[in-house]
Amino acid sequence: MALIVQKFGGSSVANPERVNHVADIICDTYRKGYDVVVVVSAQGDTTDDLIEKAKEINPNASKREMDMLLSAGEQISIALLAMAIEKQGLPVCSLLGWQAGVHTDAIYGNSRIRRVDTERMTAELSKHNILIVAGFQGINKFDDITTLGRGGSDTSAVSLAVALKAEKCQIFTDVDGVYTADPRIVKNAQKLDEINYNEMLELATLGAQVLHNRSVEMAQKYAVELEVLSSITNNKGTIVKENVEVEKTIIRGVAKDDNIARISIVGLQDVPGVAFKLFDRLAQKRVNVDIILQSVGRDGTKDITFTVSRDQQEVAMEVVTAFDPQAKVSCDNNISKVSIVGSGMESHPSVAAKMFEALYAADINIQMINTSEIRISVLIDINDSNKALKAVHDAFIK
Amino acid sequence: MALIVQKFGGSSVANPERVNHVADIICDTYRKGYDVVVVVSAQGDTTDDLIEKAKEINPNASKREMDMLLSAGEQISIALLAMAIEKQGLPVCSLLGWQAGVHTDAIYGNSRIRRVDTERMTAELSKHNILIVAGFQGINKFDDITTLGRGGSDTSAVSLAVALKAEKCQIFTDVDGVYTADPRIVKNAQKLDEINYNEMLELATLGAQVLHNRSVEMAQKYAVELEVLSSITNNKGTIVKENVEVEKTIIRGVAKDDNIARISIVGLQDVPGVAFKLFDRLAQKRVNVDIILQSVGRDGTKDITFTVSRDQQEVAMEVVTAFDPQAKVSCDNNISKVSIVGSGMESHPSVAAKMFEALYAADINIQMINTSEIRISVLIDINDSNKALKAVHDAFIK
Repeated sequence: MALIVQKFGGSSVANPERVNHVADIICDTYRKGYDVVVVVSAQGDTTDDLIEKAKEINPNASKREMDMLLSAGEQISIALLAMAIEKQGLPVCSLLGWQAGVHTDAIYGNSRIRRVDTERMTAELSKHNILIVAGFQGINKFDDITTLGRGGSDTSAVSLAVALKAEKCQIFTDVDGVYTADPRIVKNAQKLDEINYNEMLELATLGAQVLHNRSVEMAQKYAVELEVLSSITNNKGTIVKENVEVEKTIIRGVAKDDNIARISIVGLQDVPGVAFKLFDRLAQKRVNVDIILQSVGRDGTKDITFTVSRDQQEVAMEVVTAFDPQAKVSCDNNISKVSIVGSGMESHPSVAAKMFEALYAADINIQMINTSEIRISVLIDINDSNKALKAVHDAFIK
Repeated sequence: MALIVQKFGGSSVANPERVNHVADIICDTYRKGYDVVVVVSAQGDTTDDLIEKAKEINPNASKREMDMLLSAGEQISIALLAMAIEKQGLPVCSLLGWQAGVHTDAIYGNSRIRRVDTERMTAELSKHNILIVAGFQGINKFDDITTLGRGGSDTSAVSLAVALKAEKCQIFTDVDGVYTADPRIVKNAQKLDEINYNEMLELATLGAQVLHNRSVEMAQKYAVELEVLSSITNNKGTIVKENVEVEKTIIRGVAKDDNIARISIVGLQDVPGVAFKLFDRLAQKRVNVDIILQSVGRDGTKDITFTVSRDQQEVAMEVVTAFDPQAKVSCDNNISKVSIVGSGMESHPSVAAKMFEALYAADINIQMINTSEIRISVLIDINDSNKALKAVHDAFIK
């Protein structure tokens, strides 16, 4: 029998009404003749509430104990969702990460799934049970509970879809698909029917928060078809798959990220290996560097500028300040990154010029530029970010 | 190294201050040179809150899913308590029931511990970790989480003490020991320094809610010394063990239970096996019958009267009403059971007379009487219960 994996986020199960509605969606799918495996996150603000409880007692609690604490959130939601399905008279069985055979590496707080032992799930499916599996969690080689980090339930869902050879993996969320831009900012943003993995990955990384990027990578690697759709409306969602028809639009979407900071180091000694050493030290402190720009400075020195996410700004500044006492360091977080994404741009060299023209026409100054094969990003003043998003969207998407 | 098992109930960890205070008690014990294994219940009203959440979604949820839900409560409290100990700089490790090797039978909602596999706990103790174990929960042969029923954390604690050969098992609660009567009702009630297992068992069964009776049975079977003491004061508690010095008082304590109902069946056909059949049907419905009284009725019939707890009254009435359509059935729950307990009464035949005299002097009518070797219970009008408790306490305990 064909199997569908369905994933529901925390807001989809935030209260009893929503839990019952999600149960309706699951039971409908089951009654259509599918085997159904559901992955669910903790209800609404449960995870944040638990983090708050921990902070009150020990702001420096170990990650092992944080994982023990936070994984209780999904445990509550799988039990409640299973109860809602029992009420509809269908056979159901909730499973914790370890019961579903989700084995991770040993890293607490941000672990990666190593393998999924499907024995228990297969046995329950053969009894025609609907399975409700706790997302975001697994078990490591010490038999300790681990969590996959924020957004990890998407990864849980795709991993189960891969392990169980699901026909597809549906990610239910509070928006009804992937849009050409954030509809709250760009009123005429359009829902996409389809998008390919690479485009989705760029959009996910750029802050379009409908899918966790690790889950998109995994879906691409194992060719799992994803569908992003709303748990509230019954509308058709957006399909994420490998081969997507090239539409008239060259650009699949535009996105902005306000959560960044730019760090500049002026007057670094110009000796071989200086860039390597700097970014190696940043990597050691687990700082993810995004855009890097290096230029020749005055008097045989060099200047390096790079961006990081705002929550890593402090750590990055510590590293940079200690790196070369001669150099002058500065930091600016009044900036925003606006990007356009689309596989079509590979064959359309005029895309960048058109983007810059749209920004120029809107009187917006570009501070830095960064590109990949299917993406162009610019750094601008944060106060211009919404205006820039609209201008770029209007230039490409009619 | 000598090992102590300490158990803390839900009110002892109800808020961050209490959690920190409990961590102090544990760390003090550890610093004195003991290995420490802690069993903890869910915080404050967590279990009730979770039950409420379940009822909103499905009042008839399966016991398996209820166990999945409720066991999250202890998971939260073990993590928070471990974090409070981490703050004090001591090595600690929280363990869920299944991680601690607590294996139960397959009954959900009210399971019994079958065995404790100490492998993981022993390994953690050899690393000098303080262990914080989730009470009230275990795992069954299907790898499903089970709960031991209300009060089951006491049983968890004693089971671990048995399995790990602990020197003693300390049960911390919100009273500072076992009293001769409920101090809220009988002002001059006295704290006992010692009590033997049988006496404690009778008191626990009679509603003195300091210890779960299954835990006392297990402690007696394996000769584990129990100590009941307060998590708030630093007072010495009450020791529960096999051989307790006979004190001047013959009676160890008095207790009352208002949570009972009396069911009477008048005019049952007097044929062999009628009582067996009646109580067998009640047992099939899992009704626990307490006091039973059978007498000869009119015209070759017999009358049977018995008591059950009030929450089983409805089920019991259904069974009894269907049992013999000829018989007349009635139910009364305006009653209370007042009992005196003490090993000393075995050698003092005048105890019963003295109890009845005290009740007579207080103008209280006795409706039924039931005795064991170390207990005498009477059924009286519920409105007289506090007066009766005081009168009996004053007669025996100076």
